[in-house]
Amino acid sequence: MAKTMRAVIKSSKERGITVTEAPVPTIKNDDEVLIKVHKRAICGTDLHIYQWNAWSQNRIKTPVILGHEFYGEIVEAGRNVHTYKVGDLVTAEMHVVCNQCAMCRTGKAHLCEHVVILGVDGPGAFADYVVVPALNLWKVKPGIPEEYFAIYDPFGNAVHTVFEGDIPTKSVLITGAGPIGAMAAGIAKAAGASKVFVSEINDYRREMAGKMGADVLINPAKENLVEKVMDLTGGEGVDNILEMSGAQPALKDGLKVIKKAGNLVLLGIYNNDVTLDFNEAIIFKGITIKGINGRKMFDTWYRMDGLLQTGKIDLAPVITHHFPMEEIEKGLLLMEEGKAGKVILS
Amino acid sequence: MAKTMRAVIKSSKERGITVTEAPVPTIKNDDEVLIKVHKRAICGTDLHIYQWNAWSQNRIKTPVILGHEFYGEIVEAGRNVHTYKVGDLVTAEMHVVCNQCAMCRTGKAHLCEHVVILGVDGPGAFADYVVVPALNLWKVKPGIPEEYFAIYDPFGNAVHTVFEGDIPTKSVLITGAGPIGAMAAGIAKAAGASKVFVSEINDYRREMAGKMGADVLINPAKENLVEKVMDLTGGEGVDNILEMSGAQPALKDGLKVIKKAGNLVLLGIYNNDVTLDFNEAIIFKGITIKGINGRKMFDTWYRMDGLLQTGKIDLAPVITHHFPMEEIEKGLLLMEEGKAGKVILS
Amino acid sequence: MAKTMRAVIKSSKERGITVTEAPVPTIKNDDEVLIKVHKRAICGTDLHIYQWNAWSQNRIKTPVILGHEFYGEIVEAGRNVHTYKVGDLVTAEMHVVCNQCAMCRTGKAHLCEHVVILGVDGPGAFADYVVVPALNLWKVKPGIPEEYFAIYDPFGNAVHTVFEGDIPTKSVLITGAGPIGAMAAGIAKAAGASKVFVSEINDYRREMAGKMGADVLINPAKENLVEKVMDLTGGEGVDNILEMSGAQPALKDGLKVIKKAGNLVLLGIYNNDVTLDFNEAIIFKGITIKGINGRKMFDTWYRMDGLLQTGKIDLAPVITHHFPMEEIEKGLLLMEEGKAGKVILS
Amino acid sequence: MAKTMRAVIKSSKERGITVTEAPVPTIKNDDEVLIKVHKRAICGTDLHIYQWNAWSQNRIKTPVILGHEFYGEIVEAGRNVHTYKVGDLVTAEMHVVCNQCAMCRTGKAHLCEHVVILGVDGPGAFADYVVVPALNLWKVKPGIPEEYFAIYDPFGNAVHTVFEGDIPTKSVLITGAGPIGAMAAGIAKAAGASKVFVSEINDYRREMAGKMGADVLINPAKENLVEKVMDLTGGEGVDNILEMSGAQPALKDGLKVIKKAGNLVLLGIYNNDVTLDFNEAIIFKGITIKGINGRKMFDTWYRMDGLLQTGKIDLAPVITHHFPMEEIEKGLLLMEEGKAGKVILS
Repeated sequence: MAKTMRAVIKSSKERGITVTEAPVPTIKNDDEVLIKVHKRAICGTDLHIYQWNAWSQNRIKTPVILGHEFYGEIVEAGRNVHTYKVGDLVTAEMHVVCNQCAMCRTGKAHLCEHVVILGVDGPGAFADYVVVPALNLWKVKPGIPEEYFAIYDPFGNAVHTVFEGDIPTKSVLITGAGPIGAMAAGIAKAAGASKVFVSEINDYRREMAGKMGADVLINPAKENLVEKVMDLTGGEGVDNILEMSGAQPALKDGLKVIKKAGNLVLLGIYNNDVTLDFNEAIIFKGITIKGINGRKMFDTWYRMDGLLQTGKIDLAPVITHHFPMEEIEKGLLLMEEGKAGKVILS
Repeated sequence: MAKTMRAVIKSSKERGITVTEAPVPTIKNDDEVLIKVHKRAICGTDLHIYQWNAWSQNRIKTPVILGHEFYGEIVEAGRNVHTYKVGDLVTAEMHVVCNQCAMCRTGKAHLCEHVVILGVDGPGAFADYVVVPALNLWKVKPGIPEEYFAIYDPFGNAVHTVFEGDIPTKSVLITGAGPIGAMAAGIAKAAGASKVFVSEINDYRREMAGKMGADVLINPAKENLVEKVMDLTGGEGVDNILEMSGAQPALKDGLKVIKKAGNLVLLGIYNNDVTLDFNEAIIFKGITIKGINGRKMFDTWYRMDGLLQTGKIDLAPVITHHFPMEEIEKGLLLMEEGKAGKVILS
Repeated sequence: MAKTMRAVIKSSKERGITVTEAPVPTIKNDDEVLIKVHKRAICGTDLHIYQWNAWSQNRIKTPVILGHEFYGEIVEAGRNVHTYKVGDLVTAEMHVVCNQCAMCRTGKAHLCEHVVILGVDGPGAFADYVVVPALNLWKVKPGIPEEYFAIYDPFGNAVHTVFEGDIPTKSVLITGAGPIGAMAAGIAKAAGASKVFVSEINDYRREMAGKMGADVLINPAKENLVEKVMDLTGGEGVDNILEMSGAQPALKDGLKVIKKAGNLVLLGIYNNDVTLDFNEAIIFKGITIKGINGRKMFDTWYRMDGLLQTGKIDLAPVITHHFPMEEIEKGLLLMEEGKAGKVILS
Repeated sequence: MAKTMRAVIKSSKERGITVTEAPVPTIKNDDEVLIKVHKRAICGTDLHIYQWNAWSQNRIKTPVILGHEFYGEIVEAGRNVHTYKVGDLVTAEMHVVCNQCAMCRTGKAHLCEHVVILGVDGPGAFADYVVVPALNLWKVKPGIPEEYFAIYDPFGNAVHTVFEGDIPTKSVLITGAGPIGAMAAGIAKAAGASKVFVSEINDYRREMAGKMGADVLINPAKENLVEKVMDLTGGEGVDNILEMSGAQPALKDGLKVIKKAGNLVLLGIYNNDVTLDFNEAIIFKGITIKGINGRKMFDTWYRMDGLLQTGKIDLAPVITHHFPMEEIEKGLLLMEEGKAGKVILS
């Protein structure tokens, strides 16, 4: 095997990234595998790191190889790895957890107190090779398009969020239709939601949600979200709000159209503190709110396979662009303009 | 209004029923409505009463007008009835509950200690008119074929049973495909089950389940159920068993192919005591079992509307015959031969 | 029976109440009973109506007989009332619900869309007699001090709130120790909470919580709540926050000491919009929040009986004063000063 | 350190055990620790192995060091062990799981497909030293009697079983009062059960349950269990049955006194197939049944600590005997006679 490889690195503390050569990583631990990456996808987090926003400045220790959405082929397996073998196609949960904290020990590893995210805190998959602990692997399954495994990370965010609601036979409003919101629309439909509303200002994204199967598309910049939802539900409102925009008006409108005893599931991140009438919005209506982080390890992953095996959901509409890994900046710029869903790097 | 009407009556303590004239019933209570029945459906219970089986001999006090599956139009409303009006098309939950026992007072009225079933314990809907308490009514909704409301009672049994499992993204084996089992297959598919297996000896019924959308049909009289399910699941088995046959071999085979931590939901009634290895089948595998009775009032009913509004399930395949009410016996005999799904009486 | 009775009436649109004569009410409906009231208790809501605060000005239609916490003896029963009889000692859920809306029809009547509260929207129990629908009654049980049934309404708020958390074997912080918060401390202890912290500024109330069994009392005006809780939990924080103060600092401090995946249950009402960092407080920590309204009908009521029958909780510490009904104003003024728990009127 | 140690070994395929010398085990894996055992407890499983019953003959590969209930002090830690250090007092979950199967990967490791039980399938703790993977350790906590950690394994079975019921404010019947059943009585009381009934034929055991806090003790050999429970519950029955006897009459009687919608939790193992009227016992009553295996890793363990920290439960009554490890046979024989609770070996 070659000693060096191509890699996308965040190397300086300013806007930008570098595509360069780096040493091929090596297995340091008998429980790890070395993977030759086939395809990668760009996350909104990668864009934030590229832009070098406030969060990135706090979190990222340069230099680091980026990338936490990918799939590839195992080319070397540590001596304690028995459930995977060289040649296996795999994707991975890139949240590497401690297995020792109270969250990890009670089936809530997605809330691990000591998580290290490969591609953020450690070397990631925007490279020819990446090393991942075997416990984090997930096999590529036959019958599901291989490429979809490159976006199991954001698909998992969507699946995790949707299934914290009460979906089958019930109505859902998804506020915000980036790739995760758009996938959530398809997931909710596949899980038997009676009606799926999606609100999104960006035309490109709203149409993406439509292609994923949303029943009603709303542009809250041009239409009155509350009136439209109440009108189309006979004044009853909806059973579930999946807030994926991080926009306060979306949150507030959502809580106006949510039924009593409804579920509000929060994935979107807010730029500022939220100001809200808790009495009317939450307490008097008996609402349940859940904050979502990552993907349940690995309950969410089993659900992802199961969903794609229903044949009732196709992720193709959210995969909008393909570039060679070297041209990652093209993808980042399209995402910055709001003119891309998932961008695949091969 | 006429003083008499046509009615199907169980009048003598032996096999058979009588189609005859009877007085039109009158509202005795300000909370009741009088309904002109449009369509009815025959239940397996009606067949048992026709056959005068052991259960019927114990339960039925002759004479009684039969029929608990129907929809119709309100022609008179008691003075305290405000949420319905003359002209409304409605179906009804025919389990009239006490609203006073601990079950009724804690949201579990389907387990009421003092239930009276109209069409079994009191005058039913196999007649031109029927009186029902307003609290038991359910409005016919636009966008759903009217006729389907005539089978909301068994559809509700299926919905209740399915949603006591863990369905979306998970696999399901339904043992027994009478109309309720066949509808359950369609419901599970609409709710995002990854794969739905149905086992049924009767060819007519098994095909009905196929039309409702089951992924895999098994004839346990000719095929090895356990081997086939294990083979098609890569040796993993299924997440849920919905036991709707009342056949012990089905229960036992189901528990052989259920995954650890799986859900067994029981709707089928057994002719004899069940003999089972509780250790291997339930305890060591950490199985959850739930017994199902009736429909949740009215959670199940909201789910029925919601499901049909998804557009992902069509009940047409289980409605196999139509007869005038006077020819009910034709329908009963077809059902007895296992050559009918739901029989509609108009 | 006398034609007139003593009654506490809100008659003018300003601070104050009137103790006067009023006609004895009569049963208007066959499903109602007439109760001779034995004891009553003053609610914070009564104080708000006395003070004629903004909420009262909006809600109250004068004149109205106040009082929704009481117990008494049935002296007359409507003709359709079969589960209660003259002479029965009863208390009542004074939220009279419609039984027809989606909330009522799905076991969530505490969120009824058309609730009428007796003592707020209709004639209440601060009188010698009150009429209540039989469906709202709850029998006084032997083995429980009769007087406690006069405070089943606020005790029920506490029980409802506590059991929306995950209490047995887990730690709890209760912010705010009015009578409901103080009772919640006792309930959490009786239900096997590992440690119960109570924060409350008012000395009188904080001591009341101590008498109910709280393990740790905190005066957040003098102590650093966050530091103290973190210190006493080895830096881990608590599993549950029951927010009963309606004070934003309490909410914010609570969310600082709540563990990841913890439960925040909201009963306290806020004077203003809440401003909160949703990202850090809720989303990244994977918190579940539930808004609480009233008492579950009647799940909460069964739990109240069950709790008092354990012998592990005694409500005596929160009953701090007794007055004749005519001296209600004395009780109201003590409550206004923060120098009373529950005030009983006989 | 010495090269050999005392150990209790099952060495021949017949009734009996051997107390002998064996080599001190060594850490083979960087993730393991070597523990000097302080105290051990005898499990019913150890008795079965001693007796060489059918199960043992199938499962045990001689020779093997027995013992899976213990606590001790870490004397050596593998190089990858960071959360524990030499000198730490610990107990351990002796079910060593694969971390790779679907059960392990979804928070249900107690149902691992490839579990190895130390003391059954591998070398156990009836010895001076034992090697355990660090992931299986549980720290001895201050404020809890050290000796109790020697019985965290069976205490955990009891905690797991109890909390699969709906306990706080509800009634419970525990059938079978070996040490686990007796502890379950204390746990249910500490968790706020309204009333705890215990049925047990053996006088010694029944009294042990009484000391643990059971409200009502029943000897089903001399009293009519069904009549007594129904009588003491005003004919209503109980909300939960915890079946810990493995006796079919107990199961059947339990299902006669369980309320509709009640919970039956199964821990006891049956000698033969169970024969039961599923219709009346389960389906018509809408019962939920759960099979229990082991302890939830590590949710159950956190609950154990939390419970003991309430100060509301004391395990002393179930610890009935202490012997030096060499005299284990005395303990086994007492247990065989039904004249011991937990026997501690020091």
